[in-house]
Amino acid sequence: MSAPRPNPLLSDRDVDFQLHEVQAVSRLFSLPDFADHSRDTVSLLLESTRRFARAELYPTYRAMDEAPPVFEHGRVRVHPALRALYAGMVDLGLLTATRPPEVGGQHLPLTVHAVASAYLMAGNLSAYGYLGLTLGAAHLLEVFGSPWVRDTFMTRLYRGEWTGTMALTEPQAGSSLADVKTRATPAPDGSWRIQGSKIFISGGDQDFTENVVHLTLARIEGAEGGTRGISLFAVPSRRPEGDALVPNDVSVAGVIHKIGWRGLPSLVLNYGEAGDCRGWLVGQPGRGLACMFQMMNEARIMVGLNGVATASVAYHEALAYARERPQGRPAWAKDASRPQSPIIEHADVRRMLLRQKAIVEGGLSLLLSASYQADLAGHAPDAATRERASRLLDLLTPIAKTFPAEKGFESNALALQIHGGYGYSSEYSPESWLRDQKLNSIHEGTTGIQGLDLLGRKVIAGEGAALRAFQEEVDATVERARAAGVEAAWCDALRGALDEAATLTMELAARGLAGEVEAMLRHSADFLELFSVLAVAWRWLDQAAAAREGLKRGADGQDFYEGKLAAAQYWFAVEVPRVALLAKLCRTAEDSYARMRPEWF
Amino acid sequence: MSAPRPNPLLSDRDVDFQLHEVQAVSRLFSLPDFADHSRDTVSLLLESTRRFARAELYPTYRAMDEAPPVFEHGRVRVHPALRALYAGMVDLGLLTATRPPEVGGQHLPLTVHAVASAYLMAGNLSAYGYLGLTLGAAHLLEVFGSPWVRDTFMTRLYRGEWTGTMALTEPQAGSSLADVKTRATPAPDGSWRIQGSKIFISGGDQDFTENVVHLTLARIEGAEGGTRGISLFAVPSRRPEGDALVPNDVSVAGVIHKIGWRGLPSLVLNYGEAGDCRGWLVGQPGRGLACMFQMMNEARIMVGLNGVATASVAYHEALAYARERPQGRPAWAKDASRPQSPIIEHADVRRMLLRQKAIVEGGLSLLLSASYQADLAGHAPDAATRERASRLLDLLTPIAKTFPAEKGFESNALALQIHGGYGYSSEYSPESWLRDQKLNSIHEGTTGIQGLDLLGRKVIAGEGAALRAFQEEVDATVERARAAGVEAAWCDALRGALDEAATLTMELAARGLAGEVEAMLRHSADFLELFSVLAVAWRWLDQAAAAREGLKRGADGQDFYEGKLAAAQYWFAVEVPRVALLAKLCRTAEDSYARMRPEWF
Repeated sequence: MSAPRPNPLLSDRDVDFQLHEVQAVSRLFSLPDFADHSRDTVSLLLESTRRFARAELYPTYRAMDEAPPVFEHGRVRVHPALRALYAGMVDLGLLTATRPPEVGGQHLPLTVHAVASAYLMAGNLSAYGYLGLTLGAAHLLEVFGSPWVRDTFMTRLYRGEWTGTMALTEPQAGSSLADVKTRATPAPDGSWRIQGSKIFISGGDQDFTENVVHLTLARIEGAEGGTRGISLFAVPSRRPEGDALVPNDVSVAGVIHKIGWRGLPSLVLNYGEAGDCRGWLVGQPGRGLACMFQMMNEARIMVGLNGVATASVAYHEALAYARERPQGRPAWAKDASRPQSPIIEHADVRRMLLRQKAIVEGGLSLLLSASYQADLAGHAPDAATRERASRLLDLLTPIAKTFPAEKGFESNALALQIHGGYGYSSEYSPESWLRDQKLNSIHEGTTGIQGLDLLGRKVIAGEGAALRAFQEEVDATVERARAAGVEAAWCDALRGALDEAATLTMELAARGLAGEVEAMLRHSADFLELFSVLAVAWRWLDQAAAAREGLKRGADGQDFYEGKLAAAQYWFAVEVPRVALLAKLCRTAEDSYARMRPEWF
Repeated sequence: MSAPRPNPLLSDRDVDFQLHEVQAVSRLFSLPDFADHSRDTVSLLLESTRRFARAELYPTYRAMDEAPPVFEHGRVRVHPALRALYAGMVDLGLLTATRPPEVGGQHLPLTVHAVASAYLMAGNLSAYGYLGLTLGAAHLLEVFGSPWVRDTFMTRLYRGEWTGTMALTEPQAGSSLADVKTRATPAPDGSWRIQGSKIFISGGDQDFTENVVHLTLARIEGAEGGTRGISLFAVPSRRPEGDALVPNDVSVAGVIHKIGWRGLPSLVLNYGEAGDCRGWLVGQPGRGLACMFQMMNEARIMVGLNGVATASVAYHEALAYARERPQGRPAWAKDASRPQSPIIEHADVRRMLLRQKAIVEGGLSLLLSASYQADLAGHAPDAATRERASRLLDLLTPIAKTFPAEKGFESNALALQIHGGYGYSSEYSPESWLRDQKLNSIHEGTTGIQGLDLLGRKVIAGEGAALRAFQEEVDATVERARAAGVEAAWCDALRGALDEAATLTMELAARGLAGEVEAMLRHSADFLELFSVLAVAWRWLDQAAAAREGLKRGADGQDFYEGKLAAAQYWFAVEVPRVALLAKLCRTAEDSYARMRPEWF
């Protein structure tokens, strides 16, 4: 296999634009926790991360896709490159960067961490997966762990010595955590004996660090059924005894042959087959799901970012291919004696590229907006700002998780399509990114579950406070756009879509309050799609405003700004008009699939 | 690997419904050529085909996906099961069934042949691929071949002794056949010496018959450039010399590692490396592309059918899974002490299933309508009917090729999604059908090319005669639906969409006549999408009418008819309203990607 063609993974110019011209991330540096940071420290971090992603992660991506982990003699052997890659990612400081100095961190805004991570994900999403899972697990222990648990597990995770997982899913309880059956029994030494089985545990075993800590949901013996009977435990694969690590009766029962993310094993784990698996309670008994939701919400943002990154690397590959592949001539210049044109000259190829750009860069902007709110939620000095940001983050999370997964899959398919017959072969990478992307609509809550979460919980939270905060944000963007001289039609269209969404939300909420829960939630998938189109339109209007401002300033890169305006135009012309159609489905509670009986299929 | 769960591939009830209640295929039996056929002969053929597809083809599908052809010592070794499978398909009579008795056929309507083939495709699309390619090649020789060529090649193809391919694409000329470089030089014996290279040649070599005949496009030395300089040749891998077959200097230069259709090799072929490759001219010199278009149009219908079949097998798999997989409870009945519900109880799962049903059965109906017109075009006694049917078939072909490819891919992704985490593993089949499906938007003319073909040629052909014929067909369906008591809103919506499409077509054609070809064709992808939604709405209204008629008759299967009405309702509620949005993009010549310059990306 030859070395892959260089790929920027993400556009550096776009990342700069999004951080500094669209989001004005430097406003965060005025918050006390972030005071040590500046545009320069951010640049340094991004520089080292990009370099590592391009020089180390990306060149190993295909090898990992082609040689997935092997399960032998009860252990999982992962790709040998992972040892150095993981150490390299730890050296970049990204495991602890956003955490406070007490645990070795430097209070980096999540907004910056997110784009840095996106480079790693775009370079090699499986390699990043170990880091992301470890980060989530350690953060959970940091917040909810006892001093002993923090000292024993968290410190080693943050130092990169061990890795972490989240172990929720069971064969009989995939999306339905209320049905978790893994049991925990108190032991005299203060630990718990864990017994049960988990499935789809990403990174559940590997051979590049000496231990793996599984943040595991289990039911304490005698606890009530449903979600309130679930507690959270730290369960290491190997437990400390004195200075040694001894096997903790967590065994790998099998490897799932995933179709993507093939550098990261997905495992079936059995706990306590020999009755000797010990776990340590994290947080209060019965509060396992509440604790886990911290990790899960972070994971959902991470999934969204992954969707953007996976769409981005494929978009850049398709763009480079379209610029260099000669094929045919435009329909109005068919003279076969002339040389063929690069396919980017064909309108339909440019359509596919512009659609990808709109999805990738709109998605990135959405993820950065969510991350920005997470930064405010965690670090704003006043409680009101923190609460508002927290609600806004909650509202944006299902959208930020789903939009890149669903539209990113479409975007990845377009990247393959642009490669034509070559795209259909495994000699080229677009097909592997397409496979990778498909997981994002499934893990950490399927698209269907995100729709229920948005409509059934998030958008009506705080008696509409979350929705009002979202409206204020959109209003501010519209104001900015008008001032910058962005097309009035786009500003009006965004306001119109927002009003439509707000009115619809009230109507549906009223239906729910009237006890018509089924009719309220029936079109939750369409409602989520509607909000995705709207939220991304908001992000494109903001980018259009920043582009107009840049053009007015006479800033460098007129081409770049023109491209931004064309992509915004595309989104307002092609996607925003769908809002009214989607709203109608929700509003009329269109009943085709509600009426549909299983025996009618 | 355990035996796969039984899968009906297609619904027999639906096939009966589409043939006899929707299309009334028996009207064809009154045409002289089809006089030997009846509902009974059709049933017999379908019975034997289904049985073979379910008992023989389907059980080998996964094995072929897992063990693709091997290229060794210059030859390709395919899956050993193919020898018996190919012989079995030949025994079913499907190679010659639609052909006249003179070449061993029985004048079976293509409409019937199409559904029979769909079972084979759904069972194992790669195995069918050899048959489909052979059929197309033999038919081409039947129509355009000299007596010697017919006797030498066609007869053996039709008898199933050899297989055929279509060899158009070259590395530098994928979609751009004007740039074909393979050369043909006249030889004293009346044959031609062929020299050049072809790529993506499906079935270009195999080891279950003794020979492969490549229908090859090449440029006769000295011929003009562009498409008019291209001629068609029959070039066997081994040529007859006396009673023997000797190597004909066609060599396999490599195997493409396709991501799907993995039982059917896709090859790079080199012709005449030793200067000893002989081909025989088929049709007139310089008419190669015109001849090949017969095969290509048949192939496009076949691709559409394949898209339907591949979506169908996955839909049935997802349906069975949704009926038996317990997971969670409806949002309004969360009591965890109650057993979990099968996931078909969740509204969003039913949404995904109904969408699949609408795509699969709407697509099948579209393909049968196109096939019905092909039957009339070939066998109606009067020339006017033949010409009208031929135009209508031309108009429907790009739609029938593309809709199942594009929406079928979405449908296949939904089948995977319904399987959740299991769907993301290669232990389950949905992921393989998703891979298979992706080819259908690429081969035999990409989706982009189909859009240009529809808008730039087909819909304006005969000064609007094709479009008028389509309007008449839709009008007749609306009349039928009104008489049957189908919802007036659907009838009105279909008429409205048709009027919108017709007006739009006139406007765009006028733009083309005014020399604004670029603006006319800019949104050809959206135009194709618009016509797809419209054509499938037409097919759903026809099905709704047949369902209402069935319910009125008190025919068996009320559940089946109710399901048809729900799927029709879905299509009219969710898809038809998009027609206005798509028309607006075309009409206003929305210019985001037209303005977009390569350097702006």
